Amino acid sequence: MIRVAVVGATGYAGVELVRLLVRHPEAELAMVTSDSHAGIQLSRVYPHLTGIADFELQAFDPDRVAEEANVAFLALPAGLSSTMVPSLRERGVRVIDLGGDFRIPGPLFREWYKKDPPSDAVREEAVYGLTEWNRERVAGASFVSNPGCYPTAALLGLLPAVRNRGVEADGLIIDAKSGVTGAGRGVNLGNHFAEVAENFKAYKVAEHQHTPEIEYHLAVFGQGSARVSFTAHLLPMGRGILVTAYGTLTGEWREWTTERVWEVYQDAYRQEPFVRVQPAGQWPQTKEVRGTNLCDIGLTVERRTGRMIVVSVIDNLVKGAAGQAVQNLNVMMGWPETMGLDLVPMYP
Amino acid sequence: MIRVAVVGATGYAGVELVRLLVRHPEAELAMVTSDSHAGIQLSRVYPHLTGIADFELQAFDPDRVAEEANVAFLALPAGLSSTMVPSLRERGVRVIDLGGDFRIPGPLFREWYKKDPPSDAVREEAVYGLTEWNRERVAGASFVSNPGCYPTAALLGLLPAVRNRGVEADGLIIDAKSGVTGAGRGVNLGNHFAEVAENFKAYKVAEHQHTPEIEYHLAVFGQGSARVSFTAHLLPMGRGILVTAYGTLTGEWREWTTERVWEVYQDAYRQEPFVRVQPAGQWPQTKEVRGTNLCDIGLTVERRTGRMIVVSVIDNLVKGAAGQAVQNLNVMMGWPETMGLDLVPMYP
Amino acid sequence: MIRVAVVGATGYAGVELVRLLVRHPEAELAMVTSDSHAGIQLSRVYPHLTGIADFELQAFDPDRVAEEANVAFLALPAGLSSTMVPSLRERGVRVIDLGGDFRIPGPLFREWYKKDPPSDAVREEAVYGLTEWNRERVAGASFVSNPGCYPTAALLGLLPAVRNRGVEADGLIIDAKSGVTGAGRGVNLGNHFAEVAENFKAYKVAEHQHTPEIEYHLAVFGQGSARVSFTAHLLPMGRGILVTAYGTLTGEWREWTTERVWEVYQDAYRQEPFVRVQPAGQWPQTKEVRGTNLCDIGLTVERRTGRMIVVSVIDNLVKGAAGQAVQNLNVMMGWPETMGLDLVPMYP
Amino acid sequence: MIRVAVVGATGYAGVELVRLLVRHPEAELAMVTSDSHAGIQLSRVYPHLTGIADFELQAFDPDRVAEEANVAFLALPAGLSSTMVPSLRERGVRVIDLGGDFRIPGPLFREWYKKDPPSDAVREEAVYGLTEWNRERVAGASFVSNPGCYPTAALLGLLPAVRNRGVEADGLIIDAKSGVTGAGRGVNLGNHFAEVAENFKAYKVAEHQHTPEIEYHLAVFGQGSARVSFTAHLLPMGRGILVTAYGTLTGEWREWTTERVWEVYQDAYRQEPFVRVQPAGQWPQTKEVRGTNLCDIGLTVERRTGRMIVVSVIDNLVKGAAGQAVQNLNVMMGWPETMGLDLVPMYP
Repeated sequence: MIRVAVVGATGYAGVELVRLLVRHPEAELAMVTSDSHAGIQLSRVYPHLTGIADFELQAFDPDRVAEEANVAFLALPAGLSSTMVPSLRERGVRVIDLGGDFRIPGPLFREWYKKDPPSDAVREEAVYGLTEWNRERVAGASFVSNPGCYPTAALLGLLPAVRNRGVEADGLIIDAKSGVTGAGRGVNLGNHFAEVAENFKAYKVAEHQHTPEIEYHLAVFGQGSARVSFTAHLLPMGRGILVTAYGTLTGEWREWTTERVWEVYQDAYRQEPFVRVQPAGQWPQTKEVRGTNLCDIGLTVERRTGRMIVVSVIDNLVKGAAGQAVQNLNVMMGWPETMGLDLVPMYP
Repeated sequence: MIRVAVVGATGYAGVELVRLLVRHPEAELAMVTSDSHAGIQLSRVYPHLTGIADFELQAFDPDRVAEEANVAFLALPAGLSSTMVPSLRERGVRVIDLGGDFRIPGPLFREWYKKDPPSDAVREEAVYGLTEWNRERVAGASFVSNPGCYPTAALLGLLPAVRNRGVEADGLIIDAKSGVTGAGRGVNLGNHFAEVAENFKAYKVAEHQHTPEIEYHLAVFGQGSARVSFTAHLLPMGRGILVTAYGTLTGEWREWTTERVWEVYQDAYRQEPFVRVQPAGQWPQTKEVRGTNLCDIGLTVERRTGRMIVVSVIDNLVKGAAGQAVQNLNVMMGWPETMGLDLVPMYP
Repeated sequence: MIRVAVVGATGYAGVELVRLLVRHPEAELAMVTSDSHAGIQLSRVYPHLTGIADFELQAFDPDRVAEEANVAFLALPAGLSSTMVPSLRERGVRVIDLGGDFRIPGPLFREWYKKDPPSDAVREEAVYGLTEWNRERVAGASFVSNPGCYPTAALLGLLPAVRNRGVEADGLIIDAKSGVTGAGRGVNLGNHFAEVAENFKAYKVAEHQHTPEIEYHLAVFGQGSARVSFTAHLLPMGRGILVTAYGTLTGEWREWTTERVWEVYQDAYRQEPFVRVQPAGQWPQTKEVRGTNLCDIGLTVERRTGRMIVVSVIDNLVKGAAGQAVQNLNVMMGWPETMGLDLVPMYP
Repeated sequence: MIRVAVVGATGYAGVELVRLLVRHPEAELAMVTSDSHAGIQLSRVYPHLTGIADFELQAFDPDRVAEEANVAFLALPAGLSSTMVPSLRERGVRVIDLGGDFRIPGPLFREWYKKDPPSDAVREEAVYGLTEWNRERVAGASFVSNPGCYPTAALLGLLPAVRNRGVEADGLIIDAKSGVTGAGRGVNLGNHFAEVAENFKAYKVAEHQHTPEIEYHLAVFGQGSARVSFTAHLLPMGRGILVTAYGTLTGEWREWTTERVWEVYQDAYRQEPFVRVQPAGQWPQTKEVRGTNLCDIGLTVERRTGRMIVVSVIDNLVKGAAGQAVQNLNVMMGWPETMGLDLVPMYP
């Protein structure tokens, strides 16, 4: 058994890691930390874990983590992991960071997050954990930067087309919608039930910090450059992200049918245990992946406009956070990639 | 007092008409019809109307309607009003049709609705009731075709830019999201609570019948041609539509700031009682117009991509259906446009 | 026109008062206060009020209130109005207090609210504003203590039976369920969307501060003594309270049918504009009174157990707060009781 | 491996059985039937099961079931299993029936279900599968009648008090609330999203068919007689039942504290893997057991009224249906009781 720690276990991503790790056949959850609730049992903060995960929460201390665990998952607000990661890596702890600090180059981070980035030296060691597109590098990694929730859905939905030069990568439009858990458990008026229920809005329009992450990794894995309009919206529900992406067809794809494009997507994902490309005419729903590490994708060619429309869905807390992190752990350890992740969507 | 009839009073648009008309100072609700519930009191079908609107529902009969009412609102499934409208107009009844039959030319109707269109002669008499952009023609009309819910939000959001040649009208992307009431009260698995709640999906992608309505009237009121990608999505909530539209800036607008574009929108809508353009940086929410005839609009110029992003929201049952119909009644009758519509959003 | 002030206008009860008062034909909303948002426009705090109620919020100052208004509505957290009421009444301002401070005798207040009660002298001037049962005293009042949301639903549902000695008043069980707005707009984990949606729980079991209010006024208006078990539950929705009450039939009622009991209820409420007793076999729903000052009641005699079951529903923010307050204003002023309150439920 | 069949796999209880059984270590899901969808893949009806459970649905045929499976789960509307059970049992198939047909004696069934009951001979073979209270008989059973969803929550919450003569069993009040999935996947206006969301109502008051099931088994396992008022309510959410039960303390319990009663409950359930008794002052929430076979219970003694209040929660589709059925399978087979049921609640 490999021993793992969850640093920041009382946020929604943290507690979702706990949900997955307490049932993982090879990983042993050895430690959970929370600076705000240190000394308290996790099951006091989350009574649903009573009898399942009654760990005492500890304050973060890199020495303690290094003593107790081989791998640390960091599930923290942006800006916090920058300082923790070096302290853990110096002590030989492998790290999977779920925060935004290491996903994009420092200057982009500074511009979009309005915070100091980590040092280049550390950042460059981070392997971007979009497993399906970066599996080989993740396999050898000791430090993985787990993708953001919106970027995971957007990249999985767009990369087959971008990589194959089927759409104009510098003119993409990504209209994304997320459930409330994406904003975490911190209380504010923006996630008050009475303000969210029976309501829908766009937010951070043209300013969302996931924009550069999407562009940067579209360029990296798509082997070109990319420019996107990205709009985030808040759905009156807890879990789930749906991305609707629009790309202008280019090159020979301008003549292609939906079926032919579908073949490209199938080729890209046929072997993937967590990506399902829907048959033409069928569209994915967030509830169909709920609670699982799946990403479902639907697509069509719109002949009238010369565009392709792709819809991709994930559970933001699983494939968009904790699940993909465990998937990366599995790859890092050489375990079967689906280990601990063979979840059946909870429908309805 | 003008006497009005609601034909098809037991659907959601019909019962919303009842809500507005029973409190209208100048219109007297004289008759409500429902072929499926004829002979039953409306308040048996909708107990919330007990003591408020206990009318007996009648089967549709053009003679009876003509006897009882000067104006008839038709709130029926697509395809039904085609036959009813001529029978009413022959008898001198003014008509406000909330269905889709008369909104677009026959060939487009046939192509997108897969139904026979009404005769051209009748259709050409219909005045498209997008009040803010067609007020003068509505004022003289005896037959108004009320806009669809999605088109209302999309057209109000885009027309100031399109009409002023600020965006490329043949490359627009309209990503629209609607609450469940948009699909009516008919029961099917698609509106079962357990399937809709905590769920989000796109539907009729690249095939939605509101697409040609948007294109056609963008062209008419925008005085040019238009081509749009339109995607509809189903929100886990009852009321409300939000449209996110993306247009490539063109001409001198390529250099314009958000503020300058905002001025154009303000000029377009400053006098309008039901359209509110949000200050730059503020974005509309569906709940902020809930239960009212308002349309709120927010916008920004995205310098990085050379695009403009517009978000518009309405209550699909009010401004997207019954409210705009009453607004058109007011204009037709020469009454103050806000009569019976001075509703305060029910927030939260 | 009578000039009115809303003290505490940025909470949910306060903004609901604004919704009703800006459309009231005889009351002029002259002032809105908020200590936390003084100097800011109300429509900045609530953008849905833009163009409808753009008042500048002011800090509370009894002299200013007295200058600007004849009547002040107080919509404040428990404990605050105790100090404000005397300062307003000394200056001749009539007061309608929506808080809990003056609804029950001091010792009960201290026991259940764990706060200092107001002085007896002031409290004794307060008229309990359960309009249907205390109309005459409200008519002559200059200081009304508006009932709590749960007590309004419970008392309206139970009083006809209790007053007529039909049920054992010292053995009542009141199982109550409320939407989230009942807890106000203050942010805390308990009203975080992700914690409330798809969730249901009881809270403050056997400890809720509305218990003594229900018992006390059941005794006053029922002309006897009363003892109740009262349980509050949190519904995953915004507005609405439903109370299910159970009483053991007593005296001759033990032999009565549902129809006969129904007659008693009809007699009690036949003249009431805001109370609707449902026909036997029909049960009220919270949505059927949504946004209105209505209280709907359904009931049955359960022969097997010798009990009567009563279900009553209100919109907690209207009949349970702002609406009943305006109803009381109307009565105090001698205006028609439904003035400004002829609202049609927003259904669906 | 034991081979199992799910008869009626396209309802919500059926598909929940599939969710559990495809991951069960010892049971092999060999067959799924649906008369309405025979010949179609289950994953066409439920796309979330694509790649997980692509079985072809078959029409029910007892011979085929007997060939393919050792155990059949029946998840059918009330009245249907009466005829199927004998045909399966004659062929040596063990049966776990999730319907209501075999839970109560024939005359009660006829009275409350308004349908013909199964023959007494067959019914008497059925072992009532309330596992925690009937484990020994389930262990030897070849035919289990799985409890109803409401009865499961009510019985688990009340039996420790009733069995120990702590409350008056003939005066219990059970106020129950359920999510929409309890009514199944059949479409009707009562589960239309727009009618259910932001709404709450009681239904079948004093007439619910689970009433005699609760009374009958309270009497059996409580070793006395019982009489209850049972009221069902519909929550605006998908999954979850919460029961609030009120009992008058009797005998020496009249003097007991909450802590002492709590000890009785702890004694009753300490060894139970699926029942968690909350510490005094803490109350269970439906979301805390979501997706799992857990039942959480909270309780208090209300000194003022001499009553005890118990709150119990379950996931109606798991402990209230499919999960308890698998638990019974495990017991019948002599497998560890938690096999395939070691689920972590999906929170939030």
